Amino acid sequence: MVTNKVGRSVPLFVENLGNFAPYAGVFVTAPTGRRHATSIRRCLSTNNKLLPSIRESIIASGLKSGMTISFHHGFRNGDMLVNMVVDEIAALGIRDITLAPSSLQSVHSALIPHIRSGVISAITTSGLRGELAEVLTREMLLKYPVVIRSHGGRARAIESGELKIDVAFLGASAADEYGNMNGVHGSTAFGSLGYAMVDAQFADCVVAVTDNLVPYPALPISIPQTQVDYVVLVDRIGEPKGIMTGATRITRDPLELYIAAQATRVIEASGYFKEGFSFQAGTGGSSLAVAKFLKERMSETGIRGGFCTGGSTGYVCEMLHEGYFSAILDTQCFDLAAVESLRTHPRHIEMSASFYANPHSKACTAHITDIMMLGATEIDTAYNVNVLTGSDGVMMGASGGHSDTAAGTKLRLVTAPLIRGRFPIVVDKVHTIITPGECIDVLVTERGIAVNPSQPALAKRLAQAGIETVTIEELQQRAEKLTGKPEPLLQSEDIVALVEYRDGTLIDVVRRVL
Amino acid sequence: MVTNKVGRSVPLFVENLGNFAPYAGVFVTAPTGRRHATSIRRCLSTNNKLLPSIRESIIASGLKSGMTISFHHGFRNGDMLVNMVVDEIAALGIRDITLAPSSLQSVHSALIPHIRSGVISAITTSGLRGELAEVLTREMLLKYPVVIRSHGGRARAIESGELKIDVAFLGASAADEYGNMNGVHGSTAFGSLGYAMVDAQFADCVVAVTDNLVPYPALPISIPQTQVDYVVLVDRIGEPKGIMTGATRITRDPLELYIAAQATRVIEASGYFKEGFSFQAGTGGSSLAVAKFLKERMSETGIRGGFCTGGSTGYVCEMLHEGYFSAILDTQCFDLAAVESLRTHPRHIEMSASFYANPHSKACTAHITDIMMLGATEIDTAYNVNVLTGSDGVMMGASGGHSDTAAGTKLRLVTAPLIRGRFPIVVDKVHTIITPGECIDVLVTERGIAVNPSQPALAKRLAQAGIETVTIEELQQRAEKLTGKPEPLLQSEDIVALVEYRDGTLIDVVRRVL
Repeated sequence: MVTNKVGRSVPLFVENLGNFAPYAGVFVTAPTGRRHATSIRRCLSTNNKLLPSIRESIIASGLKSGMTISFHHGFRNGDMLVNMVVDEIAALGIRDITLAPSSLQSVHSALIPHIRSGVISAITTSGLRGELAEVLTREMLLKYPVVIRSHGGRARAIESGELKIDVAFLGASAADEYGNMNGVHGSTAFGSLGYAMVDAQFADCVVAVTDNLVPYPALPISIPQTQVDYVVLVDRIGEPKGIMTGATRITRDPLELYIAAQATRVIEASGYFKEGFSFQAGTGGSSLAVAKFLKERMSETGIRGGFCTGGSTGYVCEMLHEGYFSAILDTQCFDLAAVESLRTHPRHIEMSASFYANPHSKACTAHITDIMMLGATEIDTAYNVNVLTGSDGVMMGASGGHSDTAAGTKLRLVTAPLIRGRFPIVVDKVHTIITPGECIDVLVTERGIAVNPSQPALAKRLAQAGIETVTIEELQQRAEKLTGKPEPLLQSEDIVALVEYRDGTLIDVVRRVL
Repeated sequence: MVTNKVGRSVPLFVENLGNFAPYAGVFVTAPTGRRHATSIRRCLSTNNKLLPSIRESIIASGLKSGMTISFHHGFRNGDMLVNMVVDEIAALGIRDITLAPSSLQSVHSALIPHIRSGVISAITTSGLRGELAEVLTREMLLKYPVVIRSHGGRARAIESGELKIDVAFLGASAADEYGNMNGVHGSTAFGSLGYAMVDAQFADCVVAVTDNLVPYPALPISIPQTQVDYVVLVDRIGEPKGIMTGATRITRDPLELYIAAQATRVIEASGYFKEGFSFQAGTGGSSLAVAKFLKERMSETGIRGGFCTGGSTGYVCEMLHEGYFSAILDTQCFDLAAVESLRTHPRHIEMSASFYANPHSKACTAHITDIMMLGATEIDTAYNVNVLTGSDGVMMGASGGHSDTAAGTKLRLVTAPLIRGRFPIVVDKVHTIITPGECIDVLVTERGIAVNPSQPALAKRLAQAGIETVTIEELQQRAEKLTGKPEPLLQSEDIVALVEYRDGTLIDVVRRVL
């Protein structure tokens, strides 16, 4: 174990996972080597890609014990595919699988028996939730620690070959029998296939799974036939209700609205709210309200934005349609209104996870965005942010694009209530570092605004605009006056998860909670 | 030298170009290994990709003597980029460059001095024309033979690493400063970037060259920022008049119209003219007229087609817009009407050369097309087709997608006048084999129709429809009655070009014409 740049003790080697370098700074660790060389499989005129069942596709793919499978998380908590595929893998007697989806949800708690029985022996994901997250934090179920990667970091790991995917099972709400697919048509439409694009490009074998086989060519082509080995038609790949709501609602919580109003003031005073500014709203409680307030200010001032990036919600799509923004670059649709916009609006387009956030791509949008709204389950006095583990130390969130966007965006703004439940949000040291403090510019809470001391110019601009700020230590004291100092967590030395920074170095570990 | 499956003598090794396998049959030679591992270059927030000149981009790219550069041929004979770049390379004192564009045109005869001076020492292309083709067939100017590849074969060679591109200079009629680009906006709009997509994905360094810098993001994104290292803004990348005409005209030549009418009869009788049929029209003299006649028959019968593929013309686009076909998959736009259609119609989409025709991709459209219209400069009694060299043995055409589409399409129909100039089109042995006879089903001329004896079922269907057919030898005799037997060509043993079949095996060579 060595201590990394943010003071966390991380291993240099983990069995089965190999060597790791400690986190050394946001852009310090440069890429080496070349990308993973992808598999070549030809398809003759006489080949038939269409297979009658998941089971047939597992057999055809050549999946064997010890291999790695992947999925995208576009269906979110309505996903039926991961559980279906792992059930079949178990039934076929295959074991020791590494599960490498772009993220996991509560619905995947159904996997726990397959973990206990050894069908799944390793997991890498952006996040995990519910009972699955709980047991993986409290028990030593897996042979090897879970590897937590950011969306950009996962794209990087797949492209570099660090995460080699043997078989990708990619759900599509529309596909043709030659493998072209999208997520915008059909009864289980979920929107952007952005996260799946990297898997499709680099996995040795790609299986498209759909409940909606359409005539060739399935248009639009989000993932092309050239990357797909097999197509499987099943009854249903996802539960529409779990996939998404009609439209994400703007919060009515007065506390979140107040924080959003304060954040909007900060954005306006920051110097980045100007013609052509680019924006990532995120989906936290306050962030959509920030979009609404920004729209009001844009309407009043005549300022118009450039692109919006990241995931999309109906509200932001409406801003595109009304001309407030010029384009949406989308990895993931958060509601049906966003799916409809992606399907119909020519300036609302899908982007891959690599295009969005891969630090080692020739260009990622996260490096040229102006304003990013970030959330936090905890933030410490060095501005390090946790979005993975709760105040009880148990995994319950996701790394997502948090550290990716924070690394390159010009204004990195965290909004959070100062107290959540009975816990203070500002702490001495966050339980798990997802995003290092050097990437956070300002914290907006309902009880005060703190600017990172590394950003004196921003502090000055806020002062000039009459926005009062305090130190983050002052916010911490304000919180602790109400909650008291939180008790230290009871945890063992056992490492249940490794947290990779987006460049592949280790920024933190998650230890077993007792 | 060994004799390959079609009886041609081909080398097993060529200096600088390495080892070759002889052509062994259409789908006999299977791919091995994995794809080329692409370069990783990261782009920090502070990087500026925009460079002020071609020269600066050559320097930034790290191009050195002995390296390989590539271009797409979307500008056709209006291209200004190849000559501009090679002029600058010469001025920088760089030598021994391999020039690897997707194709070359007459305008590139300006390169001859750079070939004579050793700046360019090797060329691989789909085709070449005009004075450049003439001198390369008649003189031994290059150190190594030209390598002729089909469009699908080039994609295969790039993906496999057989053709390793160091720097790709890709012209775009619209690009943003982060590298996203397309060919459908701007004053030099040329349409699909299909051929460039493979270069963008696999070249170590990609330079986007545009005369139309647009705000981020340049939409649609035909080639994404993730694949682009530098962006150069120049005054003009192409001569619109040379790029394309307003709309490709249907022939008024009575001979070509007659051939087209006969070809349409053959198609209708073939059994492949049925609901949902897919079609590639090509751009030869008769082929557009075939599309017109087919449309009439579709109108009369109510039959509607599926997809059209390959290059696109305004006429075929009109058929899409009017509902005769359901989609166009497009690698190249042949006129402005096609560019306009690609820009505006949601079911007219770009496809990469690999998607179109790569025999070693997981799926290429050329393997699932129903009806393909092919041209020929010569066809021999074994149905082998030449589209590269003229009757004088001099290179003047291109391999293009000829052998790619012929390999997998269900009905492969060659139309040609029986006599061109004073030469018969049907000969004992074609000067250069581009497409092997086993991939040709039927030849339609103004003096008769011949069905390949390997296709008795087709011959029967034509007979049932009252279409008279003759043997190809009979067609040859009919031609020779008018032209006499052609004189054998005077040529040396020197090999000026190697002709690769789409799978990378050698199907023929071109010898120096005296």
